[in-house]
Amino acid sequence: MLPRGRPRALGAAALLLLLLLIGFFLFGGDVEYGRPRGAAAVDGDPSADRGGRNRSDCVPPRPPLPKCELLHVAIVCAGHNSSRDLVTLVKSVLFYRKNPLHFHLVTDAMARNILEMLFHTWMVPAVRVSFYDVEELKPQVSWIPNKHYSGLYGLMKLVLPAALPPELARVIVLDTDVTFASDIAELWALFAHFSDEQVIGLVENQSDWYLGNLWRNHRPWPALGRGFNTGVILLRLDRLRQAGWGQMWTLTATRELLTLPATSLADQDIFNAVIKEHPGLVQPLPCVWNVQLSDHTLAERCYSEASDLKVIHWNSPKKLRVKNKHVEYFRNLYLTFLEYDGNLLRRELFGCPSPPSAGAEQVQRALAQLDEEDACFEFRQQWLTVHRVHVTFLPHEPPPPQPHDVTLVAQLSMDRLQMLEALCRHWPGPMSLALYLTDAEAQQFLRFVEASAVLSARQNVAYHVVYREGPLYPVNRLRNVALAQALTPYVFLSDIDFLPAYSLYNDLRASIEQLKLGSERRAALVVPAFETLHYRFSFPSSKAEVLALLDSGSLYTFRYHEWPRGHAPTDYARWREAQTPYRVQWAADYEPYVVVPRDCPRYDPRFVGFGWNKVAHIMELDAQEYELLVLPEAFTIHLPHRPSLDISRFRSSPTYRDCLQAVKDEFHQDLSRRYGAAALKYLTALQQPRHPA
Amino acid sequence: MLPRGRPRALGAAALLLLLLLIGFFLFGGDVEYGRPRGAAAVDGDPSADRGGRNRSDCVPPRPPLPKCELLHVAIVCAGHNSSRDLVTLVKSVLFYRKNPLHFHLVTDAMARNILEMLFHTWMVPAVRVSFYDVEELKPQVSWIPNKHYSGLYGLMKLVLPAALPPELARVIVLDTDVTFASDIAELWALFAHFSDEQVIGLVENQSDWYLGNLWRNHRPWPALGRGFNTGVILLRLDRLRQAGWGQMWTLTATRELLTLPATSLADQDIFNAVIKEHPGLVQPLPCVWNVQLSDHTLAERCYSEASDLKVIHWNSPKKLRVKNKHVEYFRNLYLTFLEYDGNLLRRELFGCPSPPSAGAEQVQRALAQLDEEDACFEFRQQWLTVHRVHVTFLPHEPPPPQPHDVTLVAQLSMDRLQMLEALCRHWPGPMSLALYLTDAEAQQFLRFVEASAVLSARQNVAYHVVYREGPLYPVNRLRNVALAQALTPYVFLSDIDFLPAYSLYNDLRASIEQLKLGSERRAALVVPAFETLHYRFSFPSSKAEVLALLDSGSLYTFRYHEWPRGHAPTDYARWREAQTPYRVQWAADYEPYVVVPRDCPRYDPRFVGFGWNKVAHIMELDAQEYELLVLPEAFTIHLPHRPSLDISRFRSSPTYRDCLQAVKDEFHQDLSRRYGAAALKYLTALQQPRHPA
Repeated sequence: MLPRGRPRALGAAALLLLLLLIGFFLFGGDVEYGRPRGAAAVDGDPSADRGGRNRSDCVPPRPPLPKCELLHVAIVCAGHNSSRDLVTLVKSVLFYRKNPLHFHLVTDAMARNILEMLFHTWMVPAVRVSFYDVEELKPQVSWIPNKHYSGLYGLMKLVLPAALPPELARVIVLDTDVTFASDIAELWALFAHFSDEQVIGLVENQSDWYLGNLWRNHRPWPALGRGFNTGVILLRLDRLRQAGWGQMWTLTATRELLTLPATSLADQDIFNAVIKEHPGLVQPLPCVWNVQLSDHTLAERCYSEASDLKVIHWNSPKKLRVKNKHVEYFRNLYLTFLEYDGNLLRRELFGCPSPPSAGAEQVQRALAQLDEEDACFEFRQQWLTVHRVHVTFLPHEPPPPQPHDVTLVAQLSMDRLQMLEALCRHWPGPMSLALYLTDAEAQQFLRFVEASAVLSARQNVAYHVVYREGPLYPVNRLRNVALAQALTPYVFLSDIDFLPAYSLYNDLRASIEQLKLGSERRAALVVPAFETLHYRFSFPSSKAEVLALLDSGSLYTFRYHEWPRGHAPTDYARWREAQTPYRVQWAADYEPYVVVPRDCPRYDPRFVGFGWNKVAHIMELDAQEYELLVLPEAFTIHLPHRPSLDISRFRSSPTYRDCLQAVKDEFHQDLSRRYGAAALKYLTALQQPRHPA
Repeated sequence: MLPRGRPRALGAAALLLLLLLIGFFLFGGDVEYGRPRGAAAVDGDPSADRGGRNRSDCVPPRPPLPKCELLHVAIVCAGHNSSRDLVTLVKSVLFYRKNPLHFHLVTDAMARNILEMLFHTWMVPAVRVSFYDVEELKPQVSWIPNKHYSGLYGLMKLVLPAALPPELARVIVLDTDVTFASDIAELWALFAHFSDEQVIGLVENQSDWYLGNLWRNHRPWPALGRGFNTGVILLRLDRLRQAGWGQMWTLTATRELLTLPATSLADQDIFNAVIKEHPGLVQPLPCVWNVQLSDHTLAERCYSEASDLKVIHWNSPKKLRVKNKHVEYFRNLYLTFLEYDGNLLRRELFGCPSPPSAGAEQVQRALAQLDEEDACFEFRQQWLTVHRVHVTFLPHEPPPPQPHDVTLVAQLSMDRLQMLEALCRHWPGPMSLALYLTDAEAQQFLRFVEASAVLSARQNVAYHVVYREGPLYPVNRLRNVALAQALTPYVFLSDIDFLPAYSLYNDLRASIEQLKLGSERRAALVVPAFETLHYRFSFPSSKAEVLALLDSGSLYTFRYHEWPRGHAPTDYARWREAQTPYRVQWAADYEPYVVVPRDCPRYDPRFVGFGWNKVAHIMELDAQEYELLVLPEAFTIHLPHRPSLDISRFRSSPTYRDCLQAVKDEFHQDLSRRYGAAALKYLTALQQPRHPA
């Protein structure tokens, strides 16, 4: 702003005058400016503000940044892997953004399931998300033969003007394989450079593909010079609709397809063909807004000069493994956001009034009401934390629907990854596993699975990442995430340190069928739990072997030494003899591993860290009058491990115990509220505080 | 840049003219501009380029960014905690920087030891670091009574013009408790606004402290209005020297101290007093360059308007725990860099020619020579990796020099943190531990130690963080880091999964003295190793108890089951009877845990991941003719744990074994080269490949 006082008025006047001048100089020559020339586009960079050139002069004026204006971004995304890419892209956008954003996501069912949950739990202020069903749009493009690896999804960008809400006038369209290194508002601001007839903003292609001289008989689609890359697009939707865009591109595509077999680069071929016909439609964007790292890229021309990269585009099928002199630099930028703690992006916007999402507001209010002096402050804080959840983080095939199928449900953090291979060997059936990880650990986990033949061979194991936040392990929240994502009618509620009998998966399905579980009787099947304290241990292949090991003292009933109450009601003596399932009664502190219908009660998320988390769940099953049926042949064995940090902490801290007691009391009050007199027996159970399991 | 063609020449001319005009309007009124007024400084923000205001007009011209110019930054840093703060500050600067940087660090011995190693191993291109000894400068300020928590160190900023090299004309001075949210070149560019007489650029104080009305008889040092904050300073060193700065501030300080008891805010009081006398010296900087988060801060005035924060200053003793409406936002920004993977900042600069540091160049060349198709590519890559090292990450008291003292040396990663408390109970002596962590894990580790009474009570345990890079655990590199940092004449080379006998520390010192280890005889004292496979295990308090447990089968000699060769030469049968130390002979694959003088050979860093890493070291001790003396009363016991990822991987991968064999061969060739014929016996040992320990 100008210094105050009279001279400034004068100054302002003079400036106004000058601006008109500038405007004339700059935009008089629109045609020249409008013609794509890599170099020209670079030099003409109207947003270059750090090149160190044109410092002291002041044209071209940087377009006004749209302060607090809501910016719209459209992305096409399908499948598990693209969903992960999209998250990294969004993180890079959020890191630099200063405006409210509205993401318009054109997705398949898988991506929608993942991303809806992710954004819902991410709760980023001033971010809205809308979903559009890719299936509904497919018919409009499925007639186009296409050879590009993006398949039909690439072509979807053509139909956005019709697919997005009619009142939406402008949108930035992004591929999932781009990474931002700057504020997206600077890109949005380039709409200001559009002349009245321009409708599409694009960066010139940074390869010679469209010049058609890459190899003999290389016949690309028609394009202006090098053509344009469609990884980053500015669309004036309003004008495209007026101009009858749908008809326009369909005509061009149809005509070209008379002589060309198929599109090689999906939508990009068609956009370029249309632009070749109507050069006036395109506003060339500075190359820094789409630095293309394909093989043989000419991108260096662009960025070697510009010290200021804005958007990087991994538009090679090789992605990060692409060969490029500077790829290390780009990879670091990409990894920055790949591993960036997404929780840190839950920061409000300054300057712009941005009402927090309904959910966020509740949480904020609840958190604000907490008393920092309360000994259990940390705990209550943890209960209130909403963790970001990325379900089916890796590719996963839903199990074929079978009436008696059962999913193993468990949760773990990084220090238990080594259990996964053994678990896969013991349990061939479907699994739903919640992993408590940081963003960086999620990437280590990804590499771990890729490196393991056993794990990467399995399609029926669903991994759900719950992102770390807060000091305590949210064990029951994790269980609920895994439980909610189980797709079979029954679930085996297990823990990661247990290996089930090799035959358990088949035995369970048989028992479920025999006992008509769920359909006719409301029951929980108890799988007796044992433990070995030995490291080297040959896993028993039958009940007979289990009994032998018990007698030889190399196997114990679970927690036999320090917490027998936890499993005593299973009545191991009876199990030794049992030939058929037998019923047992609930008792205080009972916490068996059970098989129940998927619609069983959820775990109480207030139990965090260590202690009593399963006990409460079994209590609720009993309150809902689930029969407890012990299976005569079933068993699962706990392997030894160092105590987790949470446990060591529990053991050392009296506060921890007191807070746990507090939760137990609250839990029981709720129980009485919901089950009335029936819940009385739990009160008596609760009233003798004990070292909990 | 302007579009090409004739009209542009005209345009340029017109602009030139205009700039002169602008210059006049803007900087004519220097006096007014020069007077500190919070609001004025904000509005007058000449670098505000995102506020959404003054968009279309083009004054004031943003100062030219110094493309590729070397920027100088001075920071005063003393002690372990400030060193950690400095790293976070530097990360934030590096993240946004586009210029070569030269850091001038005024440090005490501790900080220098830490930071020299850190920057040496960080190898960030286009970053230079110089150190200046705080002790040498202290006399110049130690006469000033000071009440500020920064102690004498705060005052050091006053003597920078004298302390820094005379040829250095400009420098940015930063407190360690600031965080950058923008390119530091934008700050450097503000030097351009200095009038000829201005020498110090400062942001106005964002509290009412200097108004002197905070409480009755509150008597602050003299200042212009609210005065200025010295967390971020632009210094024209050349002019300060000409103006006789040293004398200037000394006179002022001396005079004020006649009536004032001491400085309350260290250097800041004196800077302000000088400025009060000579207002012409100061160039007020836009408030966004030093957003002060002290209690009762008025900073909101500044940033609530500016959507673009540049530098955040945690200038409250409470630091991150300061109460502030928006503290969550600032904390997230800070945590971003606290947990940021510093390895990602090893990226070259674009546009600017920046020769990599000598070390970096070597590594680059060696890496470039690797053959990607080589099965051992990953391994060789890992051997060549230079890991960032942050020694004495936490406060640490060097042990008092004692002729026979011994330091326990070990290494670990996150999954072994739980061992630390037990280890501290078993070993009261000094320890030097290398931790292999990510930047984020290093913070978890910090919180873990703070939360543990046992660990935070210990001053003689030095923790050295080696930052994770690459897929394999660089076990020997870690051992060498811990070994190099041991400060006692002797070291006990242990592993993290072992707990030594409670008496071992004392026994070892006695034995070292008795046996005249080091001084008269070159020997390695062998501490016999045992293992328990049981979880619950009561640790034996004497050799007698060890023997009893051996006989009862609840204790075994280490790796008795799967790798007896590793410790057989210790001759456990003889140990049972031994009353005095006895000598044993080296044999193939022997890998005992030994006590040696600190100057023993280093471990061979080519052994990464799992396998043979200790064997090679013992072999080298033998080659250097160390006697191997087994101690009769000493013992250490290995506790069970899940196999580490590296081990599981080793077991599953034949490549891993082949590559290990390759290293073994290379290792032996070196051995023969260095020890000639004497090394022959190792060849025979090497030639029978075995499952290595």
